[in-house]
Amino acid sequence: METGKYFDWAATAPQDKDILRSSLEEAMSYFGNPSSTHEEGKKARKVFEEARKNCAKSLGVKEDTIFFTSGGTESDQIPLLSVLNSPSRSGRIIISGIEHPAVREQCANLKRLGFDVVSVNPDKNGFVNPDAIIEKVTSDTLFVGVMAVNNETGCIQPFYEIADKLIEKAGGKRKPHFHVDCVQAAGKIPLDLSRKGIDSAALSAHKISGPRGIGILYLAKEIKPFLSGGGQENGVRSGTENLFGAIAFSKCLEKFYISEDKTKSCATYERFLLQKKLTHDFIQKLKTLPKCHLVPEIRGEVEEAQDRFSPWVLQVAFLGIPGNVMVRALDAKGFSISTGSACSAKKQMRPILAAMGAKSDIQDSAVRLSFGFLTTESDMALLFDAIKSVTSDFN
Amino acid sequence: METGKYFDWAATAPQDKDILRSSLEEAMSYFGNPSSTHEEGKKARKVFEEARKNCAKSLGVKEDTIFFTSGGTESDQIPLLSVLNSPSRSGRIIISGIEHPAVREQCANLKRLGFDVVSVNPDKNGFVNPDAIIEKVTSDTLFVGVMAVNNETGCIQPFYEIADKLIEKAGGKRKPHFHVDCVQAAGKIPLDLSRKGIDSAALSAHKISGPRGIGILYLAKEIKPFLSGGGQENGVRSGTENLFGAIAFSKCLEKFYISEDKTKSCATYERFLLQKKLTHDFIQKLKTLPKCHLVPEIRGEVEEAQDRFSPWVLQVAFLGIPGNVMVRALDAKGFSISTGSACSAKKQMRPILAAMGAKSDIQDSAVRLSFGFLTTESDMALLFDAIKSVTSDFN
Repeated sequence: METGKYFDWAATAPQDKDILRSSLEEAMSYFGNPSSTHEEGKKARKVFEEARKNCAKSLGVKEDTIFFTSGGTESDQIPLLSVLNSPSRSGRIIISGIEHPAVREQCANLKRLGFDVVSVNPDKNGFVNPDAIIEKVTSDTLFVGVMAVNNETGCIQPFYEIADKLIEKAGGKRKPHFHVDCVQAAGKIPLDLSRKGIDSAALSAHKISGPRGIGILYLAKEIKPFLSGGGQENGVRSGTENLFGAIAFSKCLEKFYISEDKTKSCATYERFLLQKKLTHDFIQKLKTLPKCHLVPEIRGEVEEAQDRFSPWVLQVAFLGIPGNVMVRALDAKGFSISTGSACSAKKQMRPILAAMGAKSDIQDSAVRLSFGFLTTESDMALLFDAIKSVTSDFN
Repeated sequence: METGKYFDWAATAPQDKDILRSSLEEAMSYFGNPSSTHEEGKKARKVFEEARKNCAKSLGVKEDTIFFTSGGTESDQIPLLSVLNSPSRSGRIIISGIEHPAVREQCANLKRLGFDVVSVNPDKNGFVNPDAIIEKVTSDTLFVGVMAVNNETGCIQPFYEIADKLIEKAGGKRKPHFHVDCVQAAGKIPLDLSRKGIDSAALSAHKISGPRGIGILYLAKEIKPFLSGGGQENGVRSGTENLFGAIAFSKCLEKFYISEDKTKSCATYERFLLQKKLTHDFIQKLKTLPKCHLVPEIRGEVEEAQDRFSPWVLQVAFLGIPGNVMVRALDAKGFSISTGSACSAKKQMRPILAAMGAKSDIQDSAVRLSFGFLTTESDMALLFDAIKSVTSDFN
């Protein structure tokens, strides 16, 4: 595999082969069902709980807040669906207008069941205004969901501030459950899950070089899950425990997780800082190309705005070149980029850009470039040359 | 790992190391997201669809009826939860009283939302009477769920007959969705999923030596899924596609699946026939032990009844020896067995035996022995000796 020309890390990351191989061997040597009471079960349980402990340690949270799931989608939906078990089985759900379909589409289903779903659009730069969320909170609001990093623009949302303001607004009374989709954040930008007011968060292993089919639901507050079954994961997520996935996820978090506390995981924090520089320089080069528009514009214009974006995701439009044409043209040169997220790649719609109020010519031509731990400065230089070549063919 | 003393294959099967290793290598070499439109995505998609095709071929069904999920639980719940998207959002759900918690517990949640959940208990031998199901069917019945093989007793349920009778009762009009939990059947007993009237079925890879975290939902009829997100698997199951899981599951089905047509997979069919003999002989030996009661009794008494049970699962009670004591005593000798399913191992309840009307002393002392492809005649002889030794210590 040639990952040097792969610029779609936000869709999925090339797996860390060493971690996956060693995790598989370890998991296969503890073949019992972790929920079985016999020795084989207990041995597997021990390794499984070790993986949980290691995840918690990397994330800087308590062990009993980590629940293994089948991935980001499920980690988003477990807290969301718990509204179905609320006493009144009705009430308000507030989400941002730029949530992942795992949240957005599921909310549409809940709306059909009678829940009052309120979607709050971001400003033209892609950022959700905390006050715009807070002013929608009513006494019957059950759930508030705002993602940490948008998967298409890289905008880091003000989720800490939203957490603070939700607490403040509640004034000591019951506050709505606050969920943060951290799928594009965990292991990619500094993140403090233990921050008061964040009740749950969704994480996915395959975005940080782990296997598909394993996710984490961070849960700081007890919920009444709507999906029930064998009762694994303390009743939060039923289904036989995926030992391979849990071990591999714990190792990936250990390797890649970027703590708020720089001293905790220095190597990856340095890599994060390097990516900030690489992406910054890349943006400066892109700006020299004709008809190039960073999405949002602010990303290419205001130096101070850089810190408000994940350096791993970049949205850019080349006016006059449809996004899917750019994807295909680069693909023909061996470079993998995408228009929106893989989850909406085939739908030819850009709901996130629409929610930002982006003009239709921007929506039509925007593409996503996303980077990863293996991306080098020279990889990015080659990508730039390829983009430049495509744009000149069109001019 | 020592699988010769492992008799809890119904909880989970020791993984096929060759299949898992080779599947992981193959999956890692196609690292793109199968939903991405670029070349890396397309390459991964091709392999993923190949896996789907191979699963369909092993199962003797059409390719477009196979949907990959995160496991048995999810495969059970996707069709079940679609009742929430029914036009009236109300109606009847009929299940057997011996369904897996993935179905039973989820039905309890749906009942709280206002659905009319009817649970039909089996007879004292553990078999659901098709007519008892059919007579509960009303014009507003949305869903009927009866498992293929019970996970604790091994009783093969008359699901073909139920499918036929549901069609007959509908008389050409809309019939309720009929779902069959095949987690303990697929790859273990002859199974014809293509049988008319079976609308969906749940399969799990780890029960036949595949990885955890991957399942199949066989879906012969379109449903409106309640869980939505990125729209993968044709909208039936959202979440980034698990290529490793899909490849491994397809290889396990190819290796282990026991078709109705004996000529299709001769080796495993012969193994199935061998297990029938081994389990039959084992039952004869057990019957020589004092206070031994097969559960149901018929299994040890009526020769013709043998065909109505999966040879891979055996429930037996040694009166006076509590089930968990027997599990621990055998565990001390290195043998892994269980009381109920792993999903209920810690709850100390036997809802399935209770539904059969088993007396409390039977419920207290019953244990499950389950066998697998690697189980040998001498393994079973050693297990018998160990059980005999425990029972004589108690007498």
